[in-house]
Formats: sequence, C-alpha cells, structure tokens
Amino acid sequence: MSNEKYVIGVDYGTLSGRALLVRVSDGLEIASSVHEYSHGVIEDFLPINGQKLPPDWALQVPSDYVDVLKITVPEVLKTSGIDPADVIGIATDFTACTVLPVTESGTPLCELSEFQNNPHAYVKLWKHHSAQPHADRINELAHSRKESWISRYGGKISSEWEFAKALQLLEESPEIYSAMRYWIEAADWIIWQLCGNYVRNICTAGYKGIFQDGKYPSTEYLNALNPAFADFISAKLEHRIGELGAKAGTLTKEASLWTGLPEGIAVAVGNVDAHVTSAAANAVNPGQMVAIMGTSTCHVMVSDQLAEVPGMCGVVPGGIVSGKLGYEAGQSGVGDIFGWFANNYVPEDYAENAQKLGKDIHTYLSDLAIKQPVGGHGLVALDWQSGNRSTLVDHQLSGLILGLTLATRPEEIYRAIVESTAYGARKIVETFNNSGVPVKEFIAAGGLIKNKFVMQIYADVLNMPITVIRSSQGPALGSAIHAAVAAGAYKDVVAASAVMGGVEQIKFNPDVHNARVYDELYRHYSSLYEEFGQNNVMHDLRRIRDVALMEIA
Amino acid sequence: MSNEKYVIGVDYGTLSGRALLVRVSDGLEIASSVHEYSHGVIEDFLPINGQKLPPDWALQVPSDYVDVLKITVPEVLKTSGIDPADVIGIATDFTACTVLPVTESGTPLCELSEFQNNPHAYVKLWKHHSAQPHADRINELAHSRKESWISRYGGKISSEWEFAKALQLLEESPEIYSAMRYWIEAADWIIWQLCGNYVRNICTAGYKGIFQDGKYPSTEYLNALNPAFADFISAKLEHRIGELGAKAGTLTKEASLWTGLPEGIAVAVGNVDAHVTSAAANAVNPGQMVAIMGTSTCHVMVSDQLAEVPGMCGVVPGGIVSGKLGYEAGQSGVGDIFGWFANNYVPEDYAENAQKLGKDIHTYLSDLAIKQPVGGHGLVALDWQSGNRSTLVDHQLSGLILGLTLATRPEEIYRAIVESTAYGARKIVETFNNSGVPVKEFIAAGGLIKNKFVMQIYADVLNMPITVIRSSQGPALGSAIHAAVAAGAYKDVVAASAVMGGVEQIKFNPDVHNARVYDELYRHYSSLYEEFGQNNVMHDLRRIRDVALMEIA
Repeated sequence: MSNEKYVIGVDYGTLSGRALLVRVSDGLEIASSVHEYSHGVIEDFLPINGQKLPPDWALQVPSDYVDVLKITVPEVLKTSGIDPADVIGIATDFTACTVLPVTESGTPLCELSEFQNNPHAYVKLWKHHSAQPHADRINELAHSRKESWISRYGGKISSEWEFAKALQLLEESPEIYSAMRYWIEAADWIIWQLCGNYVRNICTAGYKGIFQDGKYPSTEYLNALNPAFADFISAKLEHRIGELGAKAGTLTKEASLWTGLPEGIAVAVGNVDAHVTSAAANAVNPGQMVAIMGTSTCHVMVSDQLAEVPGMCGVVPGGIVSGKLGYEAGQSGVGDIFGWFANNYVPEDYAENAQKLGKDIHTYLSDLAIKQPVGGHGLVALDWQSGNRSTLVDHQLSGLILGLTLATRPEEIYRAIVESTAYGARKIVETFNNSGVPVKEFIAAGGLIKNKFVMQIYADVLNMPITVIRSSQGPALGSAIHAAVAAGAYKDVVAASAVMGGVEQIKFNPDVHNARVYDELYRHYSSLYEEFGQNNVMHDLRRIRDVALMEIA
Repeated sequence: MSNEKYVIGVDYGTLSGRALLVRVSDGLEIASSVHEYSHGVIEDFLPINGQKLPPDWALQVPSDYVDVLKITVPEVLKTSGIDPADVIGIATDFTACTVLPVTESGTPLCELSEFQNNPHAYVKLWKHHSAQPHADRINELAHSRKESWISRYGGKISSEWEFAKALQLLEESPEIYSAMRYWIEAADWIIWQLCGNYVRNICTAGYKGIFQDGKYPSTEYLNALNPAFADFISAKLEHRIGELGAKAGTLTKEASLWTGLPEGIAVAVGNVDAHVTSAAANAVNPGQMVAIMGTSTCHVMVSDQLAEVPGMCGVVPGGIVSGKLGYEAGQSGVGDIFGWFANNYVPEDYAENAQKLGKDIHTYLSDLAIKQPVGGHGLVALDWQSGNRSTLVDHQLSGLILGLTLATRPEEIYRAIVESTAYGARKIVETFNNSGVPVKEFIAAGGLIKNKFVMQIYADVLNMPITVIRSSQGPALGSAIHAAVAAGAYKDVVAASAVMGGVEQIKFNPDVHNARVYDELYRHYSSLYEEFGQNNVMHDLRRIRDVALMEIA
C-alpha cells in the first residue's frame, strides 16, 4: 500500500472546465478530464427565451460550472484508479473578471424564476465588453478626483472588471442590482459551492475589485459616479478576504456527493487561471514573466518593487504569491483572433486540403505561412479584434489589417495576425522594462504552447528566448499546487512550486535575422498602435455601428 | 431581302475577348461570343520555362488576342445567321495601358525564339505594377524641370503607362529594348493585325503616351532620365496618329480568313475599353461621367473646359470624342478586390450554402450583407489592394481594413470592401467637382452594373442617382459604334451614339438615411486616405516585403 497523497486542481476556462489529479510528492499528473460547458459562451441570444443580446455581451450559466465538478472529478478518480481517500485537497482557478449576482445564500439570480428571462441575471464573462461607457466614467472621475488607487491599475479600470460591470448592472437593470446580495466573482462562487463558505480571494479582489492597501474606493467617489452606487461596497461587494493558498473551508457533504471526494478535505481559496500558472511553471521570482497564452493572454510577474506600469491590469500585494507584489497585464484577444480568422476566413479548398493531409486548419495555415520569409507578406496588423487590455485598456478599439494586395493569401493574413499578437506582447514587455520592473525571462503557458509556429514567432518578435511550462495543463496544475498548500502538505506556494511545478528543458531561441526584420515591422505596429490608440476612429466606427444596430432593433 | 447593315465590335478585357455583332440602323445587339485567353494573366511563372516572376508583374501572350478574332467573330456570324457581306466594319477596344515590344513588321518579340524565355519580351498588361520606381523618377524629374505636360496628368505619370514601363524595360532588359522597333499599345497592335497598318490611336497616345498638344516630352528630359532613353520617342514610340472613329485601313485577306468577314471592309482606329463606352451609353456631353465598373473602374467624361484635376489620369483633346476634351480617372481595383475576397476568404459553409441556394458566391454574400443597416458592421476599408490610380497615382499603396472584431463576419467585410470602392469613386467625383469640371450625371457601365447591391451602395455613397447603360456589353457596343462611323454610316461618333447607344430607364436613387450615414463613414475613409496616401507606411511594408522575397529568390 502506497502512502502517496493526491490533490485535485480544477481549471475553469472560457469554454470548458478541466480537472487534474496530481501527486503531492512530485507534481506528477495522474489523470485529467475536460467538460465543455453546455451553454458555452452566450453572445447572441439568451437560450431560455431567444432574446437578442446587444453587441459586446458575453454571458454564462453558473450551473455549467457545477456540472464540471460532477463530471470531471469522478472521471479522474475513476481513470486514475486511486483511492479517493488519498485525495487531501481541491482547489480551483477561474477566468476573471467573471462575475454574477447572487442571493444571501449564494443562489445565482438567473436560477430564480422571476429573473431567468433577464440577461443581467446571468454570469457576465470576462469578455463581456459592453460596459465601456461605464468604465470611461469610472476612469474620468478617478482622474479628476485624483484617486490614489487608479495608478495601481496603469491609470485605467477595465470595462471587464467588477466596478464597470456592476455600474452597468445598476443602470441597465436596477431590479437585478437591487435584488442581489453579492456581486461575486465566479472564482469565489465555485469555492462557496464546494465548501459552503464565501471567501473573497485577494487576487480578484485586488486586480478586478479595486481592493488596495486594505480598502476599496470611497463612498464619496461612488456617490459621485451615481448616488444609487454609493453603498455598492458595503451592500454588494465587500466580504472576508482570503490569501492565495489558504484554506477557504472543507468539502461539504453535498460537494462530496457531486465529486466522489471525501467530505472534509481542504478546499483552497479561489484563484485566477493566469495567476495560478506561475506556480505550475515554478516562475515565482522577480523578473519571471509568465504569459498564459490561450484565447486571450495574461501576463503575470512578481516583484519586490512597487512601480506604476502604464496600462497594466494592476499591481496587488499577494496577488500572485503571498508576500510579493504581483503584476498583471494582458491581451484581450490572442487565440480567439486566430480562431476567428481560421473559422471564418479560410476557403473551401484550404479546408479540404487540410483534411486530406490530416491537419487541423491552424496547422495547415501555419505550415503554409512558415515557408515565407519574415516580412514577405508585406502586412502589419493591430491585434485589437477583442479590444486592447494592456497597455491601452480600451475595449472599443478594433482590429486593423494593412498592406493587403490582390496577391495576399489567407495564410499570410493568418501569419500577420499571429505576429500582431506577438507585437502586442512585446509592447507589454517593453512597457514593464521602461517602468522599472524589467522582464528577465519569458515563460509561456496555456494552450498555444503546443503551436511551435506561434512560439517561434514570439521568440523572434520579442528577441528573447521563450521557455515553455512543462505541464500542458498549467492552470489545473497550479490549482493542484494551491490545493496541496491549503491541505498543509507544503509550507507555502513557493515551496510547493519548486517541487511540483517547472518548465521544459527546450527553449525557443530567437533567430537573429528574423528578429532584425521584426524590429522593422514592430516600428510600424508601434506607430499604428500609438495613432489608433489615441485618435477616435475606432470609437467612432463603433458608435456608428451601435446607432445603426439600435435603429433596427 | 433586307438592306440592313451590321458592324462588329471586339472588346479585349483583362481575361477574355468578346465580339458583338450590331445592327447599324438602331444599335440592336444581334449576337455575341466570348473567348477566354488561354494564357490568362501571367503573374507567377512564365509558362514557357516556369521562370518565377518578380512581385507585381502581369504579362499576357499576344497570340491570345488573335485567337479571340479567330474564334469569336466566326461564332457571331454563325449564331446571327446574317450574310457576312452585310458587315461593313469592325472596330476593337482594349485594356490600356497594355504594351508590347515588336519588330518593324509588328512581330511580338516574345514570338521570336531568341527572346521567348525573356519575360520582358511579353505583353505588359495594364496591371503590371512593378515600374513604380521608374514612374517615381519620371514624376520627380518632370516636377523639378517644371515640364508643362505633367499637369495634364494630375501631376503624376502612372507606373502603368508607356513611359514607366518602357524605362523599366530599358533598364532591366536592354537587349529587348534594343531589339524592339516599336513599343506599341496592344490596342494598336490588334488593329495592325486586322488591316496591316500601324496607326497610333490618339486616346492611348494622349492618356498613356504623354502626347500633348501635338508633341511628346523633350529629348533633354528623356536624356536626363537616362541617356540611353534620350531617343525613345523617335526610335521606339512615335508614329502616325489616328482620331477615334477614323478608318485605320481595310480588312486584310489574312484577317478575312481568320474572321470570315469580307476583305476590304473598314477597320477603325484602335481604342480603349473605357473610352468607347461613353458612346455606347450615349453619354458624350460635358458633365456626364461614365464609370466603367469591372475588375477595375475607369471614369471618363468630356468637357469644353481645360482644367487641372489633381490625380486624374489625364486630359486629352479628342481622347474620348473628337473635338472635345476628354478626361479620364480610374480605380485600379474594384471587381478584382471583390473577387479576391470572395475567392480567398469565404469559408466552406458559405460556399456550400450558396450552392444549395443556387447563388453565386457574390450574390450570396450580397444577400447576407444587405440585411444589415448602413454602418452596422463598424468597418471602414481603403480600396488599394491593387494600388490607387486616382487620385493618388500610387501603385505601391495597399489595402487596409479597420474596425474588425471577433464578431465580424465575411459578408460584413465583403460589404465594407464594396463600400470602400464606392468611397474611392466619390473621392474622384469630388475632386472633379472641386476642380471646375463638375460631375452632373453618373452613368455606370461594365460588368458590375448587374449587381444591384453594388449599384445601390454607389448611389447611397455618392448621394447621386446612378443611371445604367442599356447594353450589358458596353465596350463592345461602343466599338461597334466606332466601326459604323469608320465605315461611313454616320457622320461622327456623337451622331452614331445618339442612335445606337443609350441608358436604361430605371435609375438607382440614393436613400436619404443611408446617404447621411455614409457621409459619416466617408469622413473616416477620407482621413485614412489622406494619411496613408502620404505617410510612408505602405511603401515601407512593400520595401520590407520585396527585400524578404529577394533574399530567398
């Protein structure tokens, strides 16, 4: 009989949730299971009544998250063949800022029959981007009042975050706002489902909830935004804060029945998919930037130095690892943009050829694109199809492609789009470098690390070697590490990461020639970035669009 | 027995040639026949030896033009059932500037075994765009020497035209330059094949050959460009000029055998596809702008007023109709851009759905796009995938699409591309209006008039009614009208047009609401137009591209 103990990490992504069973002693990944949310991302019509949603909305259904627990955890227990009694803890990580309105007891308002037809009663996914006007007001007022906290967020609060989405809720659906007791991160709601306690994790509270130096924005400030918003903190938001890696509680009987795990095992405080990944890569030291590259990219890095980095998402003490300053930046669209192009703009014969060769469409496009020398397509693009999170914090920006000719082929645009996201990453790295928080290592994680074409372009564009996380399930492993800490198997996350996390031996090294050509192309990207980030063209096009669509609605 | 007489017009387009048999008394179109050039447009590899062509090349094979005569003329005679003895004349029109090097007797150098492997020995099609550096030098020198003729061309000689392409030939292939006796427009070469006489038509001589006020650029000017170019006019270019509608000669015995037409009938002076179309639309009065909308668009208009219109292609006395000033402007890419997008960027399911519905892909995209209100896609594009002929005269410019989001659908980009070309047309119309040569009517001709979706967008964007030419074969009918004049059936082209040409009764009228929204969108187009027409971004991307592609060549 083995004395080995195990933990489970559950990673909640944009489209699916994944459970990973991990051995505590060495981080070995024993079994994993994925479940796609049956409602996916709701962007067009509310499923229950077919109601058309406005542009830039993105909702989810909270019961999909519980289904992940019910399906994937029993599955990994079964696949692994281990004794469930040897599992000592569970932890989760979530997309953020993904928020929902709930009752005093944690029931989502969308599960109440009186509210189920109201889109505002549902989960607002991170990429719900229609609260930009609210974010604009939050930012203008903060700057005009010289609120000290605004500089901790690179000077801008995102439309994705708790306050902008809450203000939208208040003003567009006062009945839902009024009925809710908590405006809660999904990251914390799922922990509540597991252990019966609502603990607000320091990571989302800090990065998404403007919790800085132990306090929130003042009542005066909120009152100036909207008098009905004045008591938002006390009435809807604030709650006990939990440190990352701490225990939020123990598994309830109900959750034990869902999962097959023993009642009473440790449940860690909630966490965010990007932030847990640092632990999985054992990249928890200053200067180690971890880029979690998937549909979007999050960049996280710890530091001992407090600095103001323009356009970063935030700096939060203990926001990544307890006891260190955690910096976060991000790109709202990365793999999402590749997918948008590959799914909508690739012709029939490409699809047929890819199938003949047994390649997925991304591989097929990459294999065609790689044959061309850097710059051979004559294109440059702005990667703002989903807005710009860092460094411009503006989700009303949009994508641009320039240099098109009648000879331009789909694989060339595909490559230009991949490159545009690499330029976006370089812009973030340079901004950190110029702000006194230098990036010394670039460690990639997330779904895109499987794509060597993408990784090499990033190495060439950044002109830095790229190290790749060892685990192909970084966030889930990161969560498992936090579960191990919460269960007391290690003294802290740094110690657990050193044993359970790590990177691959192989690196992607920049090619000197390619890096030189990319320097030239990046100059053009930078000029376009400055210009279209500041001029009002994209905002005005969106205004015209919204007016046009409203008129026919 | 009928006394009716007939004429044949042959229209040489970019991809095919079309013969049209027309009744002289009323312009009735009796029969037509199309033949696709077997070599099409040669852009990648020289067929004879597989040699890779540099970027921006576009060649043709002259024997393809003769094949059109051999195939289509007998076909229309056969289909119509008329007695060939009742055909009294033939005329042709051609793309321009499409030029080739020939011997003293008119033999194309590419038909000589010693030159057949040299790409420079072939026809350079109008859209051969690699002579931009030569055009740049031609323009810089003309301005620095204050050459009077440059203002007749809107301040810029195009890389498409005779001088830029000849200078490229001289400098890149001196052996071909030296071996050729004539640098001849295909428009005139085909007439030479029909009647045995080389007559240089005033239209291409004026618009494409810098023939102004009875003379060409000076030897001193040419010497300053390149000493070996000093005698270009006398040694390679100049020749007897023929007026439009005049007789170049009579059908030779050989051409009679090719075509089945009677030897000795009238062969009209050569002409250009766009310019003949004015006659077909009976739009030969000042202020009547005829837009021949196909793969590219030509805008032609006669006037009594000599003005300098920035960026127009040229003003030539007698260049459209004898005795009047003829203005020409153009858009290098229109239907070409629609085709580029529809053929390369429309996904499998669209292709399948279109097929199920029995629609071609353009109709399918248009039908989807039309459902959306103006501005509803949030996009604006620059229509420069094939460069910009008017008003910027710069073929190193390239296309741009702005406003892309993850929700952007193919039909939305398709619509934005159609709109971008309408904005380009509006830019041209406004430039004429602002230069003292106002556009009072907009008459559309060419292949795109069949597309009501495109026509309505143009009407809305221009905020002008659009009248549509009656004939669906405008250029061929225009040529037939010139054949009738050359044969003496009418006293001049104006008289013949009044009887044989005309427009449809139905107009496309602008929608007031749509026009207002398009005003807003056009403002953005104009800003981008000014900016990217002047800043060097697109030029530099092309430079980077060309360096990259040269390195691997």
